[in-house]
Amino acid sequence: MAVNLPHPSNLLPVPGVRLGSAAAGIKYEGRDDIGVMIFDEGTTVAGVFTQSGFSAPPVLLCRERLGKSQAIRGLVANSGNANAATGDRGMADADAMTRALADSIGVDAGAVLPFSTGVIGEFLPVDLMVEPIQAAAASATEDGWLDFAKAIMTTDTVPKAYSTQFEVGGRTVTATGCAKGSGMIRPDMATMLAYIACDVSVSDEAARALVKELADKSFNRITVDGDTSTNDSFVVGFVRGYVPPSLADTASIEYEQLRSGLLGVAELLAQSVVRDGEGATKFVTVQVEGGRDEQECDTVCLTVAQSPLVKTAMFAGDPNWGRFCMAIGRAGLSDFEPALVSLYLNDVVVSKNGMVAQDYCESRASGIMNLDEYAVRINLGRGEASGSLWTSDLSFEYVKINTEYRT
Amino acid sequence: MAVNLPHPSNLLPVPGVRLGSAAAGIKYEGRDDIGVMIFDEGTTVAGVFTQSGFSAPPVLLCRERLGKSQAIRGLVANSGNANAATGDRGMADADAMTRALADSIGVDAGAVLPFSTGVIGEFLPVDLMVEPIQAAAASATEDGWLDFAKAIMTTDTVPKAYSTQFEVGGRTVTATGCAKGSGMIRPDMATMLAYIACDVSVSDEAARALVKELADKSFNRITVDGDTSTNDSFVVGFVRGYVPPSLADTASIEYEQLRSGLLGVAELLAQSVVRDGEGATKFVTVQVEGGRDEQECDTVCLTVAQSPLVKTAMFAGDPNWGRFCMAIGRAGLSDFEPALVSLYLNDVVVSKNGMVAQDYCESRASGIMNLDEYAVRINLGRGEASGSLWTSDLSFEYVKINTEYRT
Repeated sequence: MAVNLPHPSNLLPVPGVRLGSAAAGIKYEGRDDIGVMIFDEGTTVAGVFTQSGFSAPPVLLCRERLGKSQAIRGLVANSGNANAATGDRGMADADAMTRALADSIGVDAGAVLPFSTGVIGEFLPVDLMVEPIQAAAASATEDGWLDFAKAIMTTDTVPKAYSTQFEVGGRTVTATGCAKGSGMIRPDMATMLAYIACDVSVSDEAARALVKELADKSFNRITVDGDTSTNDSFVVGFVRGYVPPSLADTASIEYEQLRSGLLGVAELLAQSVVRDGEGATKFVTVQVEGGRDEQECDTVCLTVAQSPLVKTAMFAGDPNWGRFCMAIGRAGLSDFEPALVSLYLNDVVVSKNGMVAQDYCESRASGIMNLDEYAVRINLGRGEASGSLWTSDLSFEYVKINTEYRT
Repeated sequence: MAVNLPHPSNLLPVPGVRLGSAAAGIKYEGRDDIGVMIFDEGTTVAGVFTQSGFSAPPVLLCRERLGKSQAIRGLVANSGNANAATGDRGMADADAMTRALADSIGVDAGAVLPFSTGVIGEFLPVDLMVEPIQAAAASATEDGWLDFAKAIMTTDTVPKAYSTQFEVGGRTVTATGCAKGSGMIRPDMATMLAYIACDVSVSDEAARALVKELADKSFNRITVDGDTSTNDSFVVGFVRGYVPPSLADTASIEYEQLRSGLLGVAELLAQSVVRDGEGATKFVTVQVEGGRDEQECDTVCLTVAQSPLVKTAMFAGDPNWGRFCMAIGRAGLSDFEPALVSLYLNDVVVSKNGMVAQDYCESRASGIMNLDEYAVRINLGRGEASGSLWTSDLSFEYVKINTEYRT
């Protein structure tokens, strides 16, 4: 079902990062459900995590360990069980996952981060997982990105991974990333695990700032169903290797080159999550312009992108543009003036001055909404700010996937 | 598909209120799509309306006319076209609707309120409507409630109307009401038209206060899909007749009797909108207790009730209670502590201390979630406040209805 999402190809190894996978049989049969990522010494790791009040034990443990000075040397992830809403036992189980990898690679458990994705509210069968984690570690190679990406899939239909190379201070840097997630997706992090590694070193401080900025401009600009997971995590490993001297300065050209290069991968990964959104048949960019500030643009983007009536119209390919107006109208903007609003589908004007445009042509609008990908463009006509979001439609398949998920 | 929603029966006429309907062929064939309600002289009318920034012309005209001193003598409503996002022409069309009724009953157009429901963004075929409005007025009777309720239906599968009688100061008062609406429903008014009339007179001030309170405790406590309409309206007519002397005093026993009696009808109407929610197969009450204040309880109610993942679990009858935790977690409560949260399905404990309850029995939980109606009870364990909301599930039929609506 995924919208224009090819199988990963040309994945490039990142020197100093090894990945492996194995099958523990947590929930899925006949596939791997454990992935490990091992970093060479000297790697700087930073991450951002779900804003959920019900943050899962692995997320709590990640936050705790990243807050300490100990360097992170490995990640261990499982699919099929989120280890969420599991209390103290969940904390012990998350720690046990990390201990299994830590023992294999000869580091302290505090140097390993745990990740889980799947059903919420069930205890992790951690006894089943120790040997597969060790096996995954033993078989880890720099070419293991695709295996890792496959092992963390849940309702995903396609593994998601991209590589890119770009110049930083005249040297070629390689960045490879992968992600999983296709439901429970909205800004402020989604049921999503995403990882990027690159062979550039930066300071802890620069790593934290970069990861937050990357998330804000990629994973926090997507929504599938408006639900936010207990387990969302996005982690970047800056692997020892080339150390551009000027990267400490966020105004330097090198910093901008790195930021821009990594953002390219993060955007592709974030978009791939929407392209593989549960039941998605469309990939739609919602763009809001002419707002007073970015916040109100983002609010309108989100209200439109999350409206079930907008999303079912997208699924139907029906230019029922009144539903866009309805959604804009309920975004709660102060002093909102419908007569200033214009609405476009790609470059086709649909509505001007809050009503149907004089030269509106329904067949052209219908043609656009029947494309796999298009943009809904809203001009609020009251300022200079803008914002955008990537989203998918609401289909029968979404309902089907989510009524059959556990059974 | 409606959940335990019988066809209206035993509707009682309210002396001084006449209703009629007719067919204008706006969108539907073989049924009435125009309804009129005519009040005797001396009636006090008050209303509350959508909070949408894209409020439709009929809503704008209602607000304007209710803000003036002129007494309201009639209502005219159509289904099949919302006259929303239609600009100045929409205002003129809404005015023309009211003029048609006003001319028929010999009052000024300013004494009539217009209501429209249906597709957004298309101009109202008002020329088709004048004669049917006149015909509806000519045939209006005190027994016309069911005909009116049928004429305003859109995707509703059952007409919605209730009558009740109660004592106010020792005299029997009759209140009858009707409503339409089954999609685009969420608190702060839904795509919903609702009307109640009763044979008690009150002051303008008391009428306004009563209608707002009734809406807050009924129509603002329902959600189907989280979308808010451009046209939501709830209007109450207090028809001349019995005038209890003490009703000006909101602390009087008579005021409380009236408030309580009308709330009974408003709650039944609000619940009926959810029972007939688009594609609804379940009627679920979400109750939140133990909150710090009502506002946070309402926020949790709404976040849970609007979560597509919760709603698909409800449709499946699957006690995937982790999704409730996920939704509670993303409600954005400050200082939220999962370990204090308990979760029940009716009286069956599911989760305590933020994890599965020791005596949890999945088959009992499953049994409850396969009932037509049940309550999800959440105790936040951090205060004394509570709140509740009525909602429905997200089914294949919801998607089907909303992908086929225009075509």
